[in-house]
Amino acid sequence: MDELLLIGIGTGNPDHLTLQGVAAIRSADVILIPRKGADKADLADLRREICAGILGDDTARIVEFDLPRRASEGDYLANVEDWHDAIAQAWTRAIAATPGPAPRKVALLIWGDPSLYDSSLRIAGRLSPAPQITVLPGITALQALCAAHRMPLNRVGAPFLVTTGRRLRENGWPADADTVAVMLDGSCAFTTLDPAGLSIWWGAYLGMPNELTLSGPLADTAPRIQALRDEARARHGWIMDIYLLRRG
Amino acid sequence: MDELLLIGIGTGNPDHLTLQGVAAIRSADVILIPRKGADKADLADLRREICAGILGDDTARIVEFDLPRRASEGDYLANVEDWHDAIAQAWTRAIAATPGPAPRKVALLIWGDPSLYDSSLRIAGRLSPAPQITVLPGITALQALCAAHRMPLNRVGAPFLVTTGRRLRENGWPADADTVAVMLDGSCAFTTLDPAGLSIWWGAYLGMPNELTLSGPLADTAPRIQALRDEARARHGWIMDIYLLRRG
Repeated sequence: MDELLLIGIGTGNPDHLTLQGVAAIRSADVILIPRKGADKADLADLRREICAGILGDDTARIVEFDLPRRASEGDYLANVEDWHDAIAQAWTRAIAATPGPAPRKVALLIWGDPSLYDSSLRIAGRLSPAPQITVLPGITALQALCAAHRMPLNRVGAPFLVTTGRRLRENGWPADADTVAVMLDGSCAFTTLDPAGLSIWWGAYLGMPNELTLSGPLADTAPRIQALRDEARARHGWIMDIYLLRRG
Repeated sequence: MDELLLIGIGTGNPDHLTLQGVAAIRSADVILIPRKGADKADLADLRREICAGILGDDTARIVEFDLPRRASEGDYLANVEDWHDAIAQAWTRAIAATPGPAPRKVALLIWGDPSLYDSSLRIAGRLSPAPQITVLPGITALQALCAAHRMPLNRVGAPFLVTTGRRLRENGWPADADTVAVMLDGSCAFTTLDPAGLSIWWGAYLGMPNELTLSGPLADTAPRIQALRDEARARHGWIMDIYLLRRG
């Protein structure tokens, strides 16, 4: 492999794809699509749909592989390191198993943007020999959230912190920002905050036909989000959501 | 006007445009293009190029207007409020002056993404009667910076702060994050920090043919950025740049 293309595809709307993303998919010899298993949001269908929209019946270039699972017991960061090793090996095996001559240009379709809470760049750094890496940015869930609520992420000239549910739960409200965007929160960390003076803008399945949004003062809105979130996850079998909190 | 489309167009590469951005431009009755004056980075040429690529010779829908200037003396936030009022009036006048029947769907091509350090949503909130507002996200300079450096914005599971040059200069290094992205910095606020233990990833004209990047330990890299920045600004007449700082 000479070149690895990490193509940001946005958050579920195939029309989030950029024109350079379209060109990159067309240019690839192989497109790797990960499968997580039937009970998970592996989004393989969305990736297949995007490829079909661009490549039509020319599906020979699409190669699917089973994504290894991350261990959930023990040290979080150590588990992540082991998991990234295993994914790099899965990529290598999937590429080696493609029929015909060795592919020169391999593409991965990255949910959101390869730079934001995504591991592909770190996994790509494990490949040997090291290919040239090209990153094509894509629309993130954070942008889709703000678009859905028609709101700016920042106040005029003001900072904002982007963090995870785990960090918000551990560290509470940050010192340096009145706006906090929270990603990767599987368990409603906003419920651990004192809601006085806080508002929330929440969204799930952003960009998709089943997009959900809720917003308002945190005290009133938190239980509504929890109920809607539980109901939606039960109905779909999975949920991806994100939210913005603002003080004052 | 029934609907105002705020279309994120990315940061200078016409291929940053998303498929939904293309469709939105095609659907608009009028596309407003601001002019800042010959000595400024008004990017009107880029906007015209994007429209030409999508609409071909059908340029009758494109309406240019002179962007009011923001007062630089006095209170910053008060000046911003006055400026937004003036821009809302300029939009209204430009739309009223279009020939033929009143346009129902008006589009603005927004540098980057309408949610990130952009005023269009706040200006749109001043329009009367209020149109329906549709936001289409676009690739931000922050994403283009990370793509150019092939780097993730965040460390694994870790937060980052997005702030302005002004705030970094006033407040110093934040308490809550080891990664800080700095936008809207006209005067190299990174030079006000103690560089020990800090690294910087800098980019200018991101996504454009004349894209510049530099990275390394802040102590060594800051003077190189300052020199390259001065030289590039003198050559082009303007500069837009952004950077990421990381500790440890």
